[in-house]
Amino acid sequence: MENMNIAQVYKAAEVLREVARHPKLIGPTQLSDSSEVYLKPENLQRTGSFKLRGAYFKISQLSDEERSRGVIACSAGNHAQGVALAAAQAGIKATICLPAGAPISKVEATKALGAEVVMVPGVYDDAYQRALELQKEKGLTLVHPFDDPLVIAGQGTIGLEIIEEMPDVEAVVVPVGGGGLISGVAFAIKTLKPEVKVYGVQAEGAPSMVHALADGKREALDRVSTIADGIAVKEPGENTFDLCSSYVDEVVTVSDDEVAAAILTLIEQQKLVAEGAGAVSVAAVMFNKVPVKGKKVVCVVSGGNIDVTSLNRVITRGLVKNGRDCTVTVLLSDKPGQLSKVCSVIGDLGANILSVEHKRNSKNTDINGCKLHIDMETRNHEHIDIIRRGLEEAGFTVE
Amino acid sequence: MENMNIAQVYKAAEVLREVARHPKLIGPTQLSDSSEVYLKPENLQRTGSFKLRGAYFKISQLSDEERSRGVIACSAGNHAQGVALAAAQAGIKATICLPAGAPISKVEATKALGAEVVMVPGVYDDAYQRALELQKEKGLTLVHPFDDPLVIAGQGTIGLEIIEEMPDVEAVVVPVGGGGLISGVAFAIKTLKPEVKVYGVQAEGAPSMVHALADGKREALDRVSTIADGIAVKEPGENTFDLCSSYVDEVVTVSDDEVAAAILTLIEQQKLVAEGAGAVSVAAVMFNKVPVKGKKVVCVVSGGNIDVTSLNRVITRGLVKNGRDCTVTVLLSDKPGQLSKVCSVIGDLGANILSVEHKRNSKNTDINGCKLHIDMETRNHEHIDIIRRGLEEAGFTVE
Repeated sequence: MENMNIAQVYKAAEVLREVARHPKLIGPTQLSDSSEVYLKPENLQRTGSFKLRGAYFKISQLSDEERSRGVIACSAGNHAQGVALAAAQAGIKATICLPAGAPISKVEATKALGAEVVMVPGVYDDAYQRALELQKEKGLTLVHPFDDPLVIAGQGTIGLEIIEEMPDVEAVVVPVGGGGLISGVAFAIKTLKPEVKVYGVQAEGAPSMVHALADGKREALDRVSTIADGIAVKEPGENTFDLCSSYVDEVVTVSDDEVAAAILTLIEQQKLVAEGAGAVSVAAVMFNKVPVKGKKVVCVVSGGNIDVTSLNRVITRGLVKNGRDCTVTVLLSDKPGQLSKVCSVIGDLGANILSVEHKRNSKNTDINGCKLHIDMETRNHEHIDIIRRGLEEAGFTVE
Repeated sequence: MENMNIAQVYKAAEVLREVARHPKLIGPTQLSDSSEVYLKPENLQRTGSFKLRGAYFKISQLSDEERSRGVIACSAGNHAQGVALAAAQAGIKATICLPAGAPISKVEATKALGAEVVMVPGVYDDAYQRALELQKEKGLTLVHPFDDPLVIAGQGTIGLEIIEEMPDVEAVVVPVGGGGLISGVAFAIKTLKPEVKVYGVQAEGAPSMVHALADGKREALDRVSTIADGIAVKEPGENTFDLCSSYVDEVVTVSDDEVAAAILTLIEQQKLVAEGAGAVSVAAVMFNKVPVKGKKVVCVVSGGNIDVTSLNRVITRGLVKNGRDCTVTVLLSDKPGQLSKVCSVIGDLGANILSVEHKRNSKNTDINGCKLHIDMETRNHEHIDIIRRGLEEAGFTVE
């Protein structure tokens, strides 16, 4: 990593001044009882993620000849939009390879930013291969999503902004996929203030950097699976692995349910839409995965590009995880007044009924019985237990 | 309105400095093709809405004796949380009357802010009557949600901040319920820069200020009905009516579908969660209800306290309104391979299937036929027409 120096990060900050937003820290929040938590909301960045920073700085440093040929990138999400906007702002042509199954909303957003979109049959790896082919055929410059020193320097401007706005910050928590964001942020922060802790967070289903750091070498995961699709990366970069080895205090993991709960909490408490990858930092603090007790902490919320249909599912999952939504199945003998009685028990105990499904001829129940599925809004897990006991005390069988 | 003067608004800004956040304008956004639109995101304010400003300034001006007795308010939403936090910050006791049907999340949030919550059987009006009784019984000070000059001055600080951050703003668009927010904002802006236009926006189902301004006098609506529950107010205040008559250029209305589309757009484009009342300003600009073509416009997004279960419904409604989600019903003869053929027609035309319901023995269809309900993700209304025609050309009957 000969190329990494703090002057480069300051230069990136200068170059980005007119293009990128500079979202202010939000907080203190109520995200933790034991630490003072602030958010760096890069979901409010243009294109909905931090990716614009690295892509734009990279593109700004191309030679005139490279600019005239244009850039290429491969991505199913944030990097596509970051490169597309960066190229448009710089007045050069961008080609983006997307796997065929990419959500329509992301394809449309990338097109709307002026990029030429190439839909490639297959998955991400197929799209990446096609991008490499086009790079060679047409002499395009590949903008790597994370393992490029200029891209890393661009992401590092987030570290500068945090230190500038909050000089007494004690810990910074950063999502980790390929490692570009945390490499830049950790490099900038440790260079300026070595005493500030920098923690990384990966998804349990994609712990590539965690493994690499534990083993002291990079290796590819066979498969990755997480709702935090933006950080579902099989293998860290060479440069990012080196930088994380030198500058990051620890990388931890969070589960998908914890991520869903963090997304829900950000919506309800902070009115912010984060994608899974963006919320892992918050999940790590909420569920005590990082040692920040009593500290002044900044969580980088790296992006907000979550598909709205996924958002609906994640909200539901987060509500269930927090005991705020519960479905009970009650067996009824098919006598008049039963449905009304169940509803009144639930209402009296303070839950709001959201939906009722009353199936008379289910194949699984006895011919005179029926099953009642009730979805209700509850306060927490204790409240659910109270309702369950209340129904049983009223003589109902709860499955 | 003897009490309203700009010095009072500056005083409020000074008092609020240590308590309220000062959310920066976000933009320029892509919310309109024909104007340069910025957002004042008061959904990012503490308690999730602007209400803290007015409530805290009001409370800060109480006498020691009034402070020792405490305050009372009635609300099902934002005002409750604003008063609760303001009172907690000022170190005085708050009692909040809530109607029994208020969402659990709002009740819990108000309690968590330290207020004593009184649940009142019935609707908002019953809770308000109970608040008036308690006010008399206990000598509490009522913090009115909108019709109090000190409350209005507190909300007016938003106008100061907009002018300070963007001195060349040309128009400001503000949600209107009882009129407290727009009265303060319009008073501040027109006092400092009379040339800036100030537009108000109400929900079609609750156009109380629109009627009052048209008729030149206040009158109560019989009923209000809108998804923008935060501005579902039957009658403007006396003070707010006077201020709006003097300082507001025009008040327009938007439909519930337009509000849903605005909420969805704020989530997808801006990663911000707005409640219905908070999104009406954006809806008015998106759907050309205010004359701001070619102008530099600030939309005040007044709050983000939307129930997550409602959010799910609103997202779905917004997707349908924008042609991004469509359910088609196809009649099938019950032969093998039909389901697969329908799915392949849809897939080939570029829509993503979200769910399929295949009902064989529906009472409405002929005994050998069945109905297929397909929910799919589409690009826009034209795309839906293409799919419909594609299915018909393949020989299917689309209902």
